[in-house]
Amino acid sequence: MSQEPDSSKTSPARVDALELAERIANALAETAVDRDMRGGTPKHERDLLRESGLLSLAIPSELGGWGAAWPEVFAVVRRLARVDGSVAHVFGFQHLLLATLRLFADESQWRPWFRATARHNWFWGNALNPLDRRTTLRWEGAAGIITGDKSFCSGALDSDMLIVSAIDESTQKLLIGALPSDRAGILLREDWDCIGQRQTDSGGARFDGVRISREELLTTPGPLGSTFASLRPCIAQLILANIYVGIAQGAFDAARTYAREQGKPWFLANVASVGEDPYVLRTFGELWTELEAARALTDEAGRAFEHAWQRSDALTPQERGEVAITIAVAKAQTTRAGLDVATRVFDVMGARATAGKARLDRFWRNLRVHTLHDPVDYKLRDIGAWAFGGVLPTPSFYS
Amino acid sequence: MSQEPDSSKTSPARVDALELAERIANALAETAVDRDMRGGTPKHERDLLRESGLLSLAIPSELGGWGAAWPEVFAVVRRLARVDGSVAHVFGFQHLLLATLRLFADESQWRPWFRATARHNWFWGNALNPLDRRTTLRWEGAAGIITGDKSFCSGALDSDMLIVSAIDESTQKLLIGALPSDRAGILLREDWDCIGQRQTDSGGARFDGVRISREELLTTPGPLGSTFASLRPCIAQLILANIYVGIAQGAFDAARTYAREQGKPWFLANVASVGEDPYVLRTFGELWTELEAARALTDEAGRAFEHAWQRSDALTPQERGEVAITIAVAKAQTTRAGLDVATRVFDVMGARATAGKARLDRFWRNLRVHTLHDPVDYKLRDIGAWAFGGVLPTPSFYS
Amino acid sequence: MSQEPDSSKTSPARVDALELAERIANALAETAVDRDMRGGTPKHERDLLRESGLLSLAIPSELGGWGAAWPEVFAVVRRLARVDGSVAHVFGFQHLLLATLRLFADESQWRPWFRATARHNWFWGNALNPLDRRTTLRWEGAAGIITGDKSFCSGALDSDMLIVSAIDESTQKLLIGALPSDRAGILLREDWDCIGQRQTDSGGARFDGVRISREELLTTPGPLGSTFASLRPCIAQLILANIYVGIAQGAFDAARTYAREQGKPWFLANVASVGEDPYVLRTFGELWTELEAARALTDEAGRAFEHAWQRSDALTPQERGEVAITIAVAKAQTTRAGLDVATRVFDVMGARATAGKARLDRFWRNLRVHTLHDPVDYKLRDIGAWAFGGVLPTPSFYS
Amino acid sequence: MSQEPDSSKTSPARVDALELAERIANALAETAVDRDMRGGTPKHERDLLRESGLLSLAIPSELGGWGAAWPEVFAVVRRLARVDGSVAHVFGFQHLLLATLRLFADESQWRPWFRATARHNWFWGNALNPLDRRTTLRWEGAAGIITGDKSFCSGALDSDMLIVSAIDESTQKLLIGALPSDRAGILLREDWDCIGQRQTDSGGARFDGVRISREELLTTPGPLGSTFASLRPCIAQLILANIYVGIAQGAFDAARTYAREQGKPWFLANVASVGEDPYVLRTFGELWTELEAARALTDEAGRAFEHAWQRSDALTPQERGEVAITIAVAKAQTTRAGLDVATRVFDVMGARATAGKARLDRFWRNLRVHTLHDPVDYKLRDIGAWAFGGVLPTPSFYS
Repeated sequence: MSQEPDSSKTSPARVDALELAERIANALAETAVDRDMRGGTPKHERDLLRESGLLSLAIPSELGGWGAAWPEVFAVVRRLARVDGSVAHVFGFQHLLLATLRLFADESQWRPWFRATARHNWFWGNALNPLDRRTTLRWEGAAGIITGDKSFCSGALDSDMLIVSAIDESTQKLLIGALPSDRAGILLREDWDCIGQRQTDSGGARFDGVRISREELLTTPGPLGSTFASLRPCIAQLILANIYVGIAQGAFDAARTYAREQGKPWFLANVASVGEDPYVLRTFGELWTELEAARALTDEAGRAFEHAWQRSDALTPQERGEVAITIAVAKAQTTRAGLDVATRVFDVMGARATAGKARLDRFWRNLRVHTLHDPVDYKLRDIGAWAFGGVLPTPSFYS
Repeated sequence: MSQEPDSSKTSPARVDALELAERIANALAETAVDRDMRGGTPKHERDLLRESGLLSLAIPSELGGWGAAWPEVFAVVRRLARVDGSVAHVFGFQHLLLATLRLFADESQWRPWFRATARHNWFWGNALNPLDRRTTLRWEGAAGIITGDKSFCSGALDSDMLIVSAIDESTQKLLIGALPSDRAGILLREDWDCIGQRQTDSGGARFDGVRISREELLTTPGPLGSTFASLRPCIAQLILANIYVGIAQGAFDAARTYAREQGKPWFLANVASVGEDPYVLRTFGELWTELEAARALTDEAGRAFEHAWQRSDALTPQERGEVAITIAVAKAQTTRAGLDVATRVFDVMGARATAGKARLDRFWRNLRVHTLHDPVDYKLRDIGAWAFGGVLPTPSFYS
Repeated sequence: MSQEPDSSKTSPARVDALELAERIANALAETAVDRDMRGGTPKHERDLLRESGLLSLAIPSELGGWGAAWPEVFAVVRRLARVDGSVAHVFGFQHLLLATLRLFADESQWRPWFRATARHNWFWGNALNPLDRRTTLRWEGAAGIITGDKSFCSGALDSDMLIVSAIDESTQKLLIGALPSDRAGILLREDWDCIGQRQTDSGGARFDGVRISREELLTTPGPLGSTFASLRPCIAQLILANIYVGIAQGAFDAARTYAREQGKPWFLANVASVGEDPYVLRTFGELWTELEAARALTDEAGRAFEHAWQRSDALTPQERGEVAITIAVAKAQTTRAGLDVATRVFDVMGARATAGKARLDRFWRNLRVHTLHDPVDYKLRDIGAWAFGGVLPTPSFYS
Repeated sequence: MSQEPDSSKTSPARVDALELAERIANALAETAVDRDMRGGTPKHERDLLRESGLLSLAIPSELGGWGAAWPEVFAVVRRLARVDGSVAHVFGFQHLLLATLRLFADESQWRPWFRATARHNWFWGNALNPLDRRTTLRWEGAAGIITGDKSFCSGALDSDMLIVSAIDESTQKLLIGALPSDRAGILLREDWDCIGQRQTDSGGARFDGVRISREELLTTPGPLGSTFASLRPCIAQLILANIYVGIAQGAFDAARTYAREQGKPWFLANVASVGEDPYVLRTFGELWTELEAARALTDEAGRAFEHAWQRSDALTPQERGEVAITIAVAKAQTTRAGLDVATRVFDVMGARATAGKARLDRFWRNLRVHTLHDPVDYKLRDIGAWAFGGVLPTPSFYS
């Protein structure tokens, strides 16, 4: 468990979340290059988030949180992603995991968890991976016993609480539970070594007979157990889209700064400064246009999602399907634009910008890794099925 | 002059503009294919617009108009463009020309013109072309005498009033005036024959000693004569962007309808219907995503423009520049997306959709013609100069 | 039947085929715009081809033809397509249909047909459409009776001989035969009206009890009846690719000529001529690069195909599969490049190039129509299956 | 100086160069991932090249080399680049530097250097950088004294001989000389740390009063001193194009191997193996098509260059210009295709392929670094100027 927050810092009444995010982003930027090289757990940066209180950004005020609407959460995620895709990822997933409690569990469960999160600035980690069926649960009386391995457990290391998935051995159904990260039998591996998103700790976990009680299982209504509950993948996808936008904007920012401060015009351009090269300007214009398209669609999707969220249990499958499509559109566009921007920014910076110490390739590496979360072709198929025939996507953990 | 409007039809209190646009669009759709073949003046369709009262959509209520904000105007333009790019063009230009009065002339001038437009459902035509300097004005005492040729006079034929530009022979400066289309000496040529936008009547005009009074000249503050006045090109560009979005959506609509009703799956797909072909769905998804990006940016630009418009004479050059960039971004994206969509819709319809009688190439032809209004590379340059160095575009009739 | 050829003109010994094609292309160019407007049968132009002797270009010298290798045939097709996609199409199909005889029929059949073609300058027309199963054949003793409708019969009108497909009523198998176009019961409809390739006469045909003898059926080895015979679709696809390249080069030629002779620099470019605008040059450079990629791949495919053709009955399925992939690659690239070039040439010509009388949209229309022959996504799938797993495409009339 | 070669290995009579390159490539592949991580000088691999004799591949037989034509040299470069962009780079530059001697120096100079290179398997390093004017030469009697810093000295470390450029203090003209790498006063810095091409040692050099004799200066005809001499940048550009093709093919190879051996179909695909996913196949097909376009153009450019090279002093400016354009086209296409392939291969491999230890991002990193050698937009401009107006590129070290 982390230290008690300094309430003078975190009171929502006195600090604006985006302003605070700005300050944290500036701090993250100082060390982002080094940490991209090092990988590992961004312990200091995670603690900054804990201390900031922003881990409770979406928790209702009456439970001690900031009571922010989703667009504000996404804005903070995006702001952080501009300088640090990894920290933005675990911060975004904090909100996905809290929403998982809210959507899959009973009010009697999630309210205490929310309250404790706000009070103790709990950082939640992910050990939910519906495609990895190696972790199973068998019942010993009232207790479930979880055993097996799991991959892609983002932010599990240094977490206070974990959301875990396992396959019920008797029913073969997916069970999801919440439990303290230090529960006996949980081994979180420090084995994440990836070409990008290097500080997300998305490595493996091992469960060795970990006990879980029925009260810790999210079964009312359970995973995707209602139309409202099936908003969970929408949040995941929208957090991804916002991270992509943020990383791409970060690449653009870095390129602009570099070109302004260190860029030299190509000798054939016959101009005095980079800013007069017609091709450099055109490329900046193209990249900005792509980014803006990605941003605008992601903003729209955020507002549409907030509206769906507000509908709560009144949400209809049609409404849910439409918001899922809106989000899929944002994700498809941000994926494409992001990779293009992160590749082409070098064209406006020139060869010297590839110096190893600047690690300006990290934007591409971060995006390339993260945009593989699920294949964009299947998003396009979902969008097409809806645009062509009005077919709504079948809710799953990825659509 | 057109007939007196039936006020029972056009009262803004009783009819919603978009609903009315929907009805007119449905009527236009009936004959759009034939009229694309024929070219010429869409007299009947122009009269439909006159009768609808929508020509006064943006005129303030106190002057007899509907008092609509710009986003509503753009929405109507776009709706019409889905079925008929030409009629959407002249309808959009009606509002551009009215705004030209508002921005370049004195209140004592534009108020009466607005009032008369609302009362008589005047259709305004364009004879303003700042790049064509062949038309000149010389002074004979208090009267100006306009002589010369002019190209690209969209919607001048069958117009009630014209906005005319001429070069003052003594000062070589651009003068703009408003005068009745039947003023002696004006010859509007029926010589528009273009591969697309075939009913915009964007042909030539001849001025043979046409008299214009000082009161008919827009000189306070004159062309681009103030920051607020320099919003004029912003409106032009944004109308274009909305037409492009509308045409592209129209292409998509047509493709969807065709594929649903007449599409046959490719024999190698081994599926029972087009809607099960993974490649067809993916293409629909891609096209939809592109369209949505174009639409979202154009919507945003519309809201930003309305805000700038509301600022009136308080508008700063910085604010003006930023809204111009926002619009340029929308135009660049709609141009690219539109051409791509209008080309690729055939991939989901198949070879039979190229039948001559359906004229499904008209969306591409309309877009290809209209997107050449001014070169998109220079828009990208403007965007880049701003995104890279914060340089605002120099106001001109095209930026 | 056409007139006897003037052998002084056509002797391969004295005239180079490409030089002759050049002369014919120049003649076609004179009227291509008019004929694109008119549609219908290019009777005069077809007769030019007859008189030129080029209809026998690929027929072996010992049978009275020019004995040209395939790359030369493709070069002539491409040269014609630069100015006239329709005439190039029917000229290309002449060679496809002759090859159909060679591949599907017995030597005792195709030799006489070849010899007669060379002697009489027969133009062959297409009534073979394996996807249109409405035409059937039933046996009356030794004679087959063909009845039914058929679509997409390119070049059938004004042809001397036809290649016809029908479904055998008893076996449900595809039969293909060759017979004089004036055989009783054949009705060729003048109903081709398409947005592009307007003079290919690819309209419908009606067979009303048309008699065909066994000697006129191509059954040894029959349709795709051997590995060598399965080269037929390869020729079809490669003719298409060459037509696409030619049309795209024609669009480029037209744009260059227009920009040189009539282009005006954009006022914001601040240059004296179009050729100094950095964006215009860049676009020309991009289009040229795309075209060259398309041309180079199509040239390579032509050489690879010739090699496969020379292998004759020794051709292995592996060799056939590899050449099919090479051709598919060329077709995919030419499709993409062609559509892009035909759209973007307008960017270097400007708005005035959309004048109706120049019909410069015909390159896009011709390409758009013709590139829908079969879906490019399935070509990409075939290429991918081979590139990923070495899987050869299953021979069909389209792969 | 390296050891004496084992002539039994290197005799061109007994070993085919491509076969040998294949063997070396296989050896490089074993350690390429580790060496990409490490950076630094690939000493062992450079010695492999020395021992192979391939450093003399292009040296005429009568001077002890293999007498290979340029297409063979490019083929070896490309083969090496498939597994190791860095080693391919220094190997390619070996041939560029030898050609520099041949083109800029007198026969009495280059023949001995060539002979010594063949005999001793000299590896040549680059300290020629015409854009970096910090290194100067002043005359002390018959000796030149070189002083100053230089950047981007690829392959200078561990080289036997260096090609050096300096600005003549008295004339301000560019001088180029050849001298042993261990000449007193030369400091080669081990400071190359780049995001890609990590073992090219393209770091800095320091010249502290390095003496050079007139016989070591390449002044007959000197840098770009004749039409033939101006082929030098053509070689440089074509080596780059071949490296790009090779790296992109390497990315494709790696993706195919990964997808075959470790790929798992996406759960929504409902197929048993990756090779049945229609989207995966389509992507493989697209990437293959792009690669083939790049390869075909680069092959053509290689043949065209060889032809120009054979023309020797008879080469005309027109011929030189045309081959330069052909090479520019290849470079533009390979740049675009390479970056796209290196980014999108991950789409067919999935998220697990981003594991850090596989370093599959190295293809993108290598390409991104190397394709910034000079801006592709200026290549497109050159191509456009030629394609539009027949303007030949002005020979420079980059065009």
